[in-house]
Amino acid sequence: MIQNMTENQITLYIIKTLKENKKKDFDVILDELQPYDIAQLYENLPEKHQPRFLLFLSVDRLADLLEELNKEKQLEVLNKIGKERTGKVLDEMDNDDLALLLDELSPEKIASLLSGMKKSESQIVQDIMNYPPETAGRIMTNRFVWIRDYYSVKAAVEKLKIFAEYAETINYLYVIDQHRKLVGVVSYRDLLIAEPHEKISDVMYERVIAATVTTDQEEVARMVERYDFLAIPVVNEENVLMGIATVDDLIDVVIQEANEDIEKLSASGKSIDFDTKAFVAAYRRLPWLILLLFIGILSGGIISGYEQTLEQVVALTFFMPMISGMTGNTGTQSLAVVVRGLISNDINKKVVTKLILREFFVGLLIGLTCGILISLIAYFWQGNAVLGLVVGVSLFLTLIIGTLAGAVIPLILYRLNIDPAIASGPLITTLNDIFSLITYFGIATMFISYLT
Amino acid sequence: MIQNMTENQITLYIIKTLKENKKKDFDVILDELQPYDIAQLYENLPEKHQPRFLLFLSVDRLADLLEELNKEKQLEVLNKIGKERTGKVLDEMDNDDLALLLDELSPEKIASLLSGMKKSESQIVQDIMNYPPETAGRIMTNRFVWIRDYYSVKAAVEKLKIFAEYAETINYLYVIDQHRKLVGVVSYRDLLIAEPHEKISDVMYERVIAATVTTDQEEVARMVERYDFLAIPVVNEENVLMGIATVDDLIDVVIQEANEDIEKLSASGKSIDFDTKAFVAAYRRLPWLILLLFIGILSGGIISGYEQTLEQVVALTFFMPMISGMTGNTGTQSLAVVVRGLISNDINKKVVTKLILREFFVGLLIGLTCGILISLIAYFWQGNAVLGLVVGVSLFLTLIIGTLAGAVIPLILYRLNIDPAIASGPLITTLNDIFSLITYFGIATMFISYLT
Repeated sequence: MIQNMTENQITLYIIKTLKENKKKDFDVILDELQPYDIAQLYENLPEKHQPRFLLFLSVDRLADLLEELNKEKQLEVLNKIGKERTGKVLDEMDNDDLALLLDELSPEKIASLLSGMKKSESQIVQDIMNYPPETAGRIMTNRFVWIRDYYSVKAAVEKLKIFAEYAETINYLYVIDQHRKLVGVVSYRDLLIAEPHEKISDVMYERVIAATVTTDQEEVARMVERYDFLAIPVVNEENVLMGIATVDDLIDVVIQEANEDIEKLSASGKSIDFDTKAFVAAYRRLPWLILLLFIGILSGGIISGYEQTLEQVVALTFFMPMISGMTGNTGTQSLAVVVRGLISNDINKKVVTKLILREFFVGLLIGLTCGILISLIAYFWQGNAVLGLVVGVSLFLTLIIGTLAGAVIPLILYRLNIDPAIASGPLITTLNDIFSLITYFGIATMFISYLT
Repeated sequence: MIQNMTENQITLYIIKTLKENKKKDFDVILDELQPYDIAQLYENLPEKHQPRFLLFLSVDRLADLLEELNKEKQLEVLNKIGKERTGKVLDEMDNDDLALLLDELSPEKIASLLSGMKKSESQIVQDIMNYPPETAGRIMTNRFVWIRDYYSVKAAVEKLKIFAEYAETINYLYVIDQHRKLVGVVSYRDLLIAEPHEKISDVMYERVIAATVTTDQEEVARMVERYDFLAIPVVNEENVLMGIATVDDLIDVVIQEANEDIEKLSASGKSIDFDTKAFVAAYRRLPWLILLLFIGILSGGIISGYEQTLEQVVALTFFMPMISGMTGNTGTQSLAVVVRGLISNDINKKVVTKLILREFFVGLLIGLTCGILISLIAYFWQGNAVLGLVVGVSLFLTLIIGTLAGAVIPLILYRLNIDPAIASGPLITTLNDIFSLITYFGIATMFISYLT
């Protein structure tokens, strides 16, 4: 029945089971839903039905539900289910999701939440929270299956079967030695094909691709993308296996990092989404805008230095927005290419030299095309050949400078270990504005006697 | 030995085995490498060693290697291994990767490549290529395991074991009825836990999350991200199971789509990476720049309409770059928030109303802050209170307009089924430039008698 019901029908049916207190019918539906669907269902439920809904959910399902909600909603649910069940639910949650939930809460709140948990589970979470944010240590889970190198294939399969329910992935078994050091990996598929009596050390891969606890999460995502793995083992400095990072979490990382790049490139401020309050969003966006305001004043200061030139030829003003707009835009274009390229390319001297040369030629080609075009337009519009020449040559030069700046500045920042996206958006806008105004008015002032 | 060798050492060792014609030693190393590593190795190898390297590789490994290379290199390899082996290698390749390779080749080239393949395999590829680009049909693979609903758990496990080597994922078995229609899914983990004699129809999920062949690949990626699945089944209009889309391909989709958004938002032109030739990059970037050039002329035209005002108060020019820069930037900020938000949110009237109201308040707050700030700066700099007021009020208004435009325009485009990212970057820049100039000079002209 359920496979053909729409979301709305399911919600109505669930409300009916809640009203009539029919837990069995409720469970029949819930059995067919994915955690994401259960979360959607919960969020769509009228508030008055939510307490019984939560009461009807098993501890397992509550843990699944929590993992799909945002932090605000998570705390709301925990509040509603009471302290005792909270402890049990947190025990069931994935450690990495729990660490994310606790992150940024007050120490008292954290202590109160952890107090209801099993000692062993809460210890693991506290360990995870000690790793720096956005590292492999933070996103790893301890729900993996390990085997010893002397196991037979048969013994390994037996162990996997026992832990299948508990493990996040059954695709790989990680092989450790007596010191818990990672020495190999074997896929479950390989086990199915191998002879039962073979030794694990004979069938395993020994060249294991692994991350360390402090590896940047973006780097881990890159490994998964390159190798098409479903999980990556995470080790500490002594090569002791600490956990695994799974592909479902890494997809979230890829999306988060792409959003961060877009936020930085558009200077739109940290993490604003559809649910952010207006006041918070304005507060996060203002720093860049105020910076830009002062940059604008700086540009104004430069223009005021050429006040005399401007008074003589007001028509120079007409081309100002075009020149600074074009220079800014060509810089942003180069910037976007370089920032995204830095993610997927290995960077060395050869690559950098080739890239800078390429951008120079791009600037040259773009500058020539647009410079000639605007010369002609300016000449026919204002009927002044010298003005056309001044505007054309200025645009030609500023486009080359703008293109190069957009490529070179992020590379320098990358070299200095500063995230290129964060600093270069506004930085390039500033520099390109200043370059373009100085070039334009400088050239115009040189030719001022021919312009009037 | 190999687990501790660096990439360089491996390359040198491989060259040695090639020179000395030691295929056995070669295979020992290759057994431990991942496809990505083999591709890196191949690309780092001096050209003279490449033919024997390819000769030493098995057909399976050649297929793996091809899947990691870009199109240019793929064709190079196929050329080197000759027609007969090409057919065998293409038979082994994943259909979706092969379809991608053939895409955009000339019909003669495609025919020549397919001619060496098995009829059944080449037919599948040709079918895939008939689906529109960037749909589920294009990225699905036929390497999945299906079972019938009347199977026992034991029979299903047996079948999976037989097809384990062939399947892309062993995590899920898809359940079909006698008409090959998708009726359920069961995870291999569930099978391990279930009793061997239970019937599949009793243990399977019936509410299957599936994509159709024409579902946009971005939507499929979103499903995988939401549900944390490792694969999504793909059906045709009659619900017949055609293939599966796997998470490794969908990670690539997520990255590709994020890059496309960045390209469009920064108007940097389609697919420029570090390897793009200067001429091609310039050609791809020019359309936007030329568009911007004409927008710039349009702005110039507006300014020229206020020539008299400008001649009387040249100082008005000083604040032009600031006002248009700020308006453009606040628009881009809103745009970025909305474009990324559209990906992960369900859009309905309630959400849209809330969002537009939110952005209006953001614009108000930002406008008030920056407007007051610039009024004071302009007053102290130019010693003219009316000028300060004109600049402040203008900025206040343009920031509200700019913020709203950045939110409303992508929403309208989304409603009209136009990709909001592509059109709004340049569109918002234009409109905001025009709004801000008209507002600024309009207000200035109203107060011109007090300004001089």
